Amino acid sequence: MPSDLEIARQAFLKPIDDIAARLGLPPGVVEPYGHHVGKIPLEAIEQLAERPRARYVVVSAITPTPLGEGKTTTSVGLAQGFHHIGRTATVALRQPSMGPTLGIKGGAAGGGWSQVVPMERINLHLTGDIHAVTAAHNLLAAVVDNHLIQRDGVPMDPARVAWRRVVDINDRALRNVVIGLGGPENGIPRETGFEITAASEVMAILALADSLEDLRRRLGRIVVAWTRDGEPVTADDLKVAGAMAVMLKEAIKPNLMQTLENTPALIHAGPFGNIAHGNSSILADRIGIHGGDFLVTEAGFGADMGAERFFNIKCRASGMTPDAAVLVATVRGLKLHSGRHRVVAGRPLPSGMLRESPEDVAAGADNLRKQIENIRLHGVSPVVAINAFPGDYPSEHAVIREVAEAMGARVAVCTHVRDGGAGAAELAEAVAEAAEEPGDFRFLYAAGTPLEGKIECIAREVYGADGIDPSALARRQLKEFTAQGYGELPVCIAKTHLSLSSDPALRGAPRGWRMPVREVRLSAGAGFVYALCGDIRTMPGLGAQPAAAAMDLDAEGRIHGLF
Amino acid sequence: MPSDLEIARQAFLKPIDDIAARLGLPPGVVEPYGHHVGKIPLEAIEQLAERPRARYVVVSAITPTPLGEGKTTTSVGLAQGFHHIGRTATVALRQPSMGPTLGIKGGAAGGGWSQVVPMERINLHLTGDIHAVTAAHNLLAAVVDNHLIQRDGVPMDPARVAWRRVVDINDRALRNVVIGLGGPENGIPRETGFEITAASEVMAILALADSLEDLRRRLGRIVVAWTRDGEPVTADDLKVAGAMAVMLKEAIKPNLMQTLENTPALIHAGPFGNIAHGNSSILADRIGIHGGDFLVTEAGFGADMGAERFFNIKCRASGMTPDAAVLVATVRGLKLHSGRHRVVAGRPLPSGMLRESPEDVAAGADNLRKQIENIRLHGVSPVVAINAFPGDYPSEHAVIREVAEAMGARVAVCTHVRDGGAGAAELAEAVAEAAEEPGDFRFLYAAGTPLEGKIECIAREVYGADGIDPSALARRQLKEFTAQGYGELPVCIAKTHLSLSSDPALRGAPRGWRMPVREVRLSAGAGFVYALCGDIRTMPGLGAQPAAAAMDLDAEGRIHGLF
Repeated sequence: MPSDLEIARQAFLKPIDDIAARLGLPPGVVEPYGHHVGKIPLEAIEQLAERPRARYVVVSAITPTPLGEGKTTTSVGLAQGFHHIGRTATVALRQPSMGPTLGIKGGAAGGGWSQVVPMERINLHLTGDIHAVTAAHNLLAAVVDNHLIQRDGVPMDPARVAWRRVVDINDRALRNVVIGLGGPENGIPRETGFEITAASEVMAILALADSLEDLRRRLGRIVVAWTRDGEPVTADDLKVAGAMAVMLKEAIKPNLMQTLENTPALIHAGPFGNIAHGNSSILADRIGIHGGDFLVTEAGFGADMGAERFFNIKCRASGMTPDAAVLVATVRGLKLHSGRHRVVAGRPLPSGMLRESPEDVAAGADNLRKQIENIRLHGVSPVVAINAFPGDYPSEHAVIREVAEAMGARVAVCTHVRDGGAGAAELAEAVAEAAEEPGDFRFLYAAGTPLEGKIECIAREVYGADGIDPSALARRQLKEFTAQGYGELPVCIAKTHLSLSSDPALRGAPRGWRMPVREVRLSAGAGFVYALCGDIRTMPGLGAQPAAAAMDLDAEGRIHGLF
Repeated sequence: MPSDLEIARQAFLKPIDDIAARLGLPPGVVEPYGHHVGKIPLEAIEQLAERPRARYVVVSAITPTPLGEGKTTTSVGLAQGFHHIGRTATVALRQPSMGPTLGIKGGAAGGGWSQVVPMERINLHLTGDIHAVTAAHNLLAAVVDNHLIQRDGVPMDPARVAWRRVVDINDRALRNVVIGLGGPENGIPRETGFEITAASEVMAILALADSLEDLRRRLGRIVVAWTRDGEPVTADDLKVAGAMAVMLKEAIKPNLMQTLENTPALIHAGPFGNIAHGNSSILADRIGIHGGDFLVTEAGFGADMGAERFFNIKCRASGMTPDAAVLVATVRGLKLHSGRHRVVAGRPLPSGMLRESPEDVAAGADNLRKQIENIRLHGVSPVVAINAFPGDYPSEHAVIREVAEAMGARVAVCTHVRDGGAGAAELAEAVAEAAEEPGDFRFLYAAGTPLEGKIECIAREVYGADGIDPSALARRQLKEFTAQGYGELPVCIAKTHLSLSSDPALRGAPRGWRMPVREVRLSAGAGFVYALCGDIRTMPGLGAQPAAAAMDLDAEGRIHGLF
């Protein structure tokens, strides 16, 4: 099979106005940004409001393994697949972060015959939205440090500045830094650090805002520090949220691209799945929801993480509710969840994993069962997508099918990576059926539940924990946030994505464990409180052989080494 | 008079393809980036090669004062002015840095009726070129620190890493930092700092490259550190220059915009005038040089800085030579150069300066004389543009006219800020005449002159110094750079822009002084050596009332507070 880049280069791309027409947008509405990429002005939302509402489908997965389950390729393949059963669809994805693209994993725009193109654009700067987030975030940081030295600055406790800086590069040396050295002209020396831009609260805000005014208000509510009396200091207190909104005026417009089969693809915002909600933007979904028969939107990581936050954070903010949820599962992933195999990144798969073994798949199936249950908890119809790999055996697919059907879930085998949309036609049929079922969507918890109760609810109901163990610090923070009026916010659990539990080593569906809550932080602008349950990295590093080392231009100026 | 923003909003903008047509580019060549902005692919250079060559006019100024002489407005006004005398023209400008826009000075796209529009675009992200430079620069930095901790990394002396990080925000707290804290997983602790992106060598490279291949080669030559044996370590040694070129693939395309009178404006690259050459890009000039009868290009700061580097660095790299040079002068500036007045930023002008006083102008005129001489040193015809302000007196203009004419320079009064291109028609006539004179362009020094000799030559001939006093460190560095094969490079003097001398307090045309050379640094990729002669800031700070504090969006989502 040719490489992703080779396939992407052979694609026959349509003019962006033709793609916009499929969304119902007349020519000239979309603002072109180079070839085959456009930005959709927010006025389009009102222009499209009279069109029928699409069925809203969220794509999530079993608990991910280092092998990757193919959530993005399945989202793209499914959207393409609808066209093969005579229906129309749009796919909404997050913008990939450039740091990891240059660091370890290469591109992130789908794969094989299910990709968003042009892949060079989506994997590099696209239209600059992530850069705008970086700049707005770092302006706020500069203003914070400036207030610390200005005589009439807003009084903040330098030891209680929560706002760090961001950069969209994997740069481990910036994780922990001391700034403000060199004398009083150069700031107040203090310890801080950098995170990757995807982890910025500004990015989470961009993804959750439902209008430019809402973006402006949310930016103003960001809490950057506390005074010595323990009062929160906001971006509005520092008079910088207006300038931040000015800087994000173009970034708020969702980007329009296309798949290899010319299906409209909305690419917008890329909040980190570790500490933020990890879903693409509400504004993109509000446009795509009138863009045909189906809108396919992706939620990061497993259903316990991305889909739970989709339901309880994103849907709460948007007022939109899903009609079906896809759970991507792989034979390899479930074999790993059996706990019988070990893989190491960069090494070939152990031979034991390549052997035909429906038993191993069955031994790991509890993870799939729990994730199906996690969809059902929210009253949504689950559809299991078996993302087929060349080395799979029919007997192994049969096990997944049995497990899913025993839970009453629809199931389909798909080969969209090799076959494009045609390989996802069966999945599209199953999703179409599931979406026709009468909906019974419900949030997992009420806004009025105390913060600690919300965390415990997710831990017990979704992760399968016996309870939570907040540290003294976490308890104090929960109390403070509640007293300061943030108690009605939903919660976002920052835990490992590699296990249903908070221990990355535990496979399957762990039982008999309690979740530690180390610390709780506030994203008042984004509108959630997040609980750190384990060791969460917010700045990746580069390996010994970064992906960037393989990248170059050839004599014709074409990109090589971007996968 | 309405504000710049109000004027800009009332502008009647033409479609970008109409502007491209004025440059000789057929429809569809320019890649649109949002409304009224486009990128010009480099293939256009060959497509335009058969068209006649325009007269090439560089715009510089007397030594700047805190009041501003209006170099950008005059460049824009002059380009507009040509149309009022029946000629066609294009203007090439640097992209303004967002840091200062949000920090102290507001927008930087001309002023009054001589602006580049849309001003919101040029003053904010434009097409993301500066962000791409930031990202490429910081990728290299991350790779440097990564090599310091990888077992098989390229060996570098951590104490001799020259490559810092950049951000396009005025952030004084990042001037001096310690990074790599938190244990061996997080890098090696070391002292470093951040500069504003305009000061990045990558930005200088973007401005000096004459093709994508040349950009790639220059990136590879960047020296980031030295080994313990004193050998230079380059970006190519670290295998990262290819990825950097990939990241700059779109940024290398010049941006096309228009003036308020629909004159084509090429906006590309923004190298810092303090430590780099401070000129817009060679590629923009190579496109604009076939874009009509005249190409007006701006050189930063006074003629001793921007124009000297234009002649000896940019023209040397491009092979293009100018036909005329404009020197912008103001009554207020020359009054300040008399040394008889003092102004303080943010305070009203002293009443003594507002009084009619041709004597004060005459007392400051030595600065203008020396700058005229600096143009002549390179064999180019100077034209003095008197940028008229409302409070000027005809007797004061007359003094400037006499001084210029006594030196044999053409001179014109211009009112382009108030009157648009019509106010620069007289200047356009004078420039057209000067450009018709037979050219006698020459470099100030030969490439073969030793580095120290080059520095001394500029100090004596252009700045009027009696000689130079290199420190022991500077002497050792000059010797090392020469031994390592960098002796043929031109030099860029990093000194204050506020005086012809290296002492910012000295006005007029100081004599009887020697220039200290504190340190010498290498920009091997950009292709020059720069000498630090005084205290040069490469990261501005925010004031007590940053410009950002006044910016916001109104209810219609329009920007306010961007000047």
